[in-house]
Amino acid sequence: MGPEPQEQQPYEVVELIRTKRDGGRLDDAQVDWVIEAYTRGLVADEQMSALAMAIFFRGLDRAELSRWTQAMINSGERLDFGSISRPTADKHSTGGVGDKITLPLAPLVAAHGVAVPQLSGRGLGHTGGTLDKLEAIPGWRAALSTGEFLAQLRTVGAVVCAAGASLAPADRKLYALRDVTGTVESIPLIASSIMSKKIAEGASALVLDVKVGSGAFMKSVADARALAAAMVSLGAAHDVRTVALLTDMSVPLGRTAGNGLEVAESVEVLAGGGPADVVELTVALAREMLAAAGLSDVDPAVALADGRAMDVWRRMIAAQGGSPDAPLPVARETSDLPAPATGVLTRLDAYAVGVAAWRLGAGRARKEDPVSPAAGVEMLAKPGDRVTAGAPLLRLHTDEPARIERALAALAGAVTVGGAAPAARDLVLDRIAED
Amino acid sequence: MGPEPQEQQPYEVVELIRTKRDGGRLDDAQVDWVIEAYTRGLVADEQMSALAMAIFFRGLDRAELSRWTQAMINSGERLDFGSISRPTADKHSTGGVGDKITLPLAPLVAAHGVAVPQLSGRGLGHTGGTLDKLEAIPGWRAALSTGEFLAQLRTVGAVVCAAGASLAPADRKLYALRDVTGTVESIPLIASSIMSKKIAEGASALVLDVKVGSGAFMKSVADARALAAAMVSLGAAHDVRTVALLTDMSVPLGRTAGNGLEVAESVEVLAGGGPADVVELTVALAREMLAAAGLSDVDPAVALADGRAMDVWRRMIAAQGGSPDAPLPVARETSDLPAPATGVLTRLDAYAVGVAAWRLGAGRARKEDPVSPAAGVEMLAKPGDRVTAGAPLLRLHTDEPARIERALAALAGAVTVGGAAPAARDLVLDRIAED
Repeated sequence: MGPEPQEQQPYEVVELIRTKRDGGRLDDAQVDWVIEAYTRGLVADEQMSALAMAIFFRGLDRAELSRWTQAMINSGERLDFGSISRPTADKHSTGGVGDKITLPLAPLVAAHGVAVPQLSGRGLGHTGGTLDKLEAIPGWRAALSTGEFLAQLRTVGAVVCAAGASLAPADRKLYALRDVTGTVESIPLIASSIMSKKIAEGASALVLDVKVGSGAFMKSVADARALAAAMVSLGAAHDVRTVALLTDMSVPLGRTAGNGLEVAESVEVLAGGGPADVVELTVALAREMLAAAGLSDVDPAVALADGRAMDVWRRMIAAQGGSPDAPLPVARETSDLPAPATGVLTRLDAYAVGVAAWRLGAGRARKEDPVSPAAGVEMLAKPGDRVTAGAPLLRLHTDEPARIERALAALAGAVTVGGAAPAARDLVLDRIAED
Repeated sequence: MGPEPQEQQPYEVVELIRTKRDGGRLDDAQVDWVIEAYTRGLVADEQMSALAMAIFFRGLDRAELSRWTQAMINSGERLDFGSISRPTADKHSTGGVGDKITLPLAPLVAAHGVAVPQLSGRGLGHTGGTLDKLEAIPGWRAALSTGEFLAQLRTVGAVVCAAGASLAPADRKLYALRDVTGTVESIPLIASSIMSKKIAEGASALVLDVKVGSGAFMKSVADARALAAAMVSLGAAHDVRTVALLTDMSVPLGRTAGNGLEVAESVEVLAGGGPADVVELTVALAREMLAAAGLSDVDPAVALADGRAMDVWRRMIAAQGGSPDAPLPVARETSDLPAPATGVLTRLDAYAVGVAAWRLGAGRARKEDPVSPAAGVEMLAKPGDRVTAGAPLLRLHTDEPARIERALAALAGAVTVGGAAPAARDLVLDRIAED
């Protein structure tokens, strides 16, 4: 209501909210204070959510976004790989359906002598999480101590594990708040959330896979490009060599969506086979990670064919307690969705497949829910393939037959069969780097 | 993240927030649910503040606003004056500096046989509250039981007292939230807050005094007109005959700002004297209230001159334990601010005077703070009056001399002395009613 000071804080948070709401900018000290005060509980959740909504409408300029990200990094620890005697490269995907790329990618890059410290998350909603996938492997564990993490990075060169609570705790608190307040869909808030974690994770090079399409968070190329540009710029501002690829997510990646199913498919890729799109994207991202780490003249595909990537995979899984040769869990029940007509499959909607896999048990609605290692969707045809009316098109895997009906409901309208092959689609739509 | 139901509620609040955020509208059932669920604690503060910020940017259309207001009314009790055998009229001011109009107005209207059930609030910040002013009268008490309230309305015809907690509890909770989240300044949220309380208070006619200018919440005529139109429309939708006057608040009303000082000035008006602007606005608002209650052919000024309004005032004060003849509290210390030059006073800024009175002890920064009954600012000249360099212009009253320095700081630049009289200003700028 006016100029009377109410407590011994350098700012009134209501004034900062109003400044942003009315189109003004927050200076460095204000950004530092609001992030720190929120993390410490001096700024209440209801104030931060109002500020987040104001940012949704008004944005953050380049300097505000950089400082906001820095303040979130400063809220916790920043890992330092100075003791690792090789270059490090990290990768982040904004999340898609059937996106198992981290599994073949991390060992493939490590096979070239570049260390890959990959801190990952669990899935929520229709996109799966890398940790959920790897946990389908009997014995594999996601939680490592810092000592175990660094030792594995030295000896194996690749680690995929859970991020500790010490990295960017402000982001963890803010993300949980945004999730329940309708303030997730803000490009600067998404960019600062991803980049604060990734920069705190300490790699010196970072490749971003920004997905676009029905199965992705960003539905339009323009939004995806804006997000990629914001993240690349943040990486440069924090001395992390950062490149982004915009990649298609209108169709699921590969022929499986589900935890154990995707592990099996990843192992096929590491054995030199696997679906062409998964191989293409794995190699494209590996090439970028190697180049960012200083190795420009390498064809990463070779290490898939000659078994070097598979060797690293086996050592990586075993180092975390997993049995690379143990059979993967099999679902109690499968049910086939037949092709609705004879012809060429022209469309297979990524979002619908993701929701179906989720409903079959592969995903979770709440953070505390368990996931099934065996549930998911197997795609017996992909766009461009010929299909025959009544022959199996999608195979649904689940431990609970009651889930099949709701999964089928999600797939209504997800498939189109036509007379002619669809136009070839590009998997990698654009590449964004700092000049 | 998707279509999975998370709890047994008819709506996901995040979906409603997103709908509003993205420019959509909430239907009746959604509005009813969100207000009720918020009042019951099923919608969290951080969700409601995000929704309020989305409403700040996107607004509410006429039907949404009407339903939102109805839902807030439905959250509590609605008073019913059916047992009072005379028409009832109520008044609301959006708040200004020196705005003591309720004090002479309520008895003036009641003197014409129209009952005035005036539920009022306390001041916060630079604008005073009617209850704070009346509490300067020795013995007067603001809290009445419903029985006492109705009895006084029958026997005296005018009651000014504190609103009970049973009226529009959703508004009370939402207002407290908006106050700390930078979401106060939204015309639909302001309109629904005021009108839900006023409609729940049960009068059949309502006159709104919407203030415009430096000392008012609305700084521009356009904003004030939009707010007035929204409120008049809400009144009509809820069968309350509602008229709004837009009135100037660039200069304080009358010659005093402060609790006991304003009571004394109001008594002068009731005795047939007092400052011309206070008399003009009191009579203009009384005329509107009487007309809205069905008495169009009355000149209210007569009842100020012949003592009938004063009779009602004395009975009204006595009925609530006050002594109309007891001396009002006197401040321990006064200090004069001299005129900076000789000439005509051309400007006396309302906001600055309001802040000075607040700092002298007349107002509060937090709801739980006490106020001084004696503190305030006495204006020895108003715009248009001749002043002499060095002669007293403003007299500051306080119980704590240490407060004077900060009050003087608030008044820096608040006064302009010129060579010629300022152009006459209109006090009533516009009148807004449903066609």
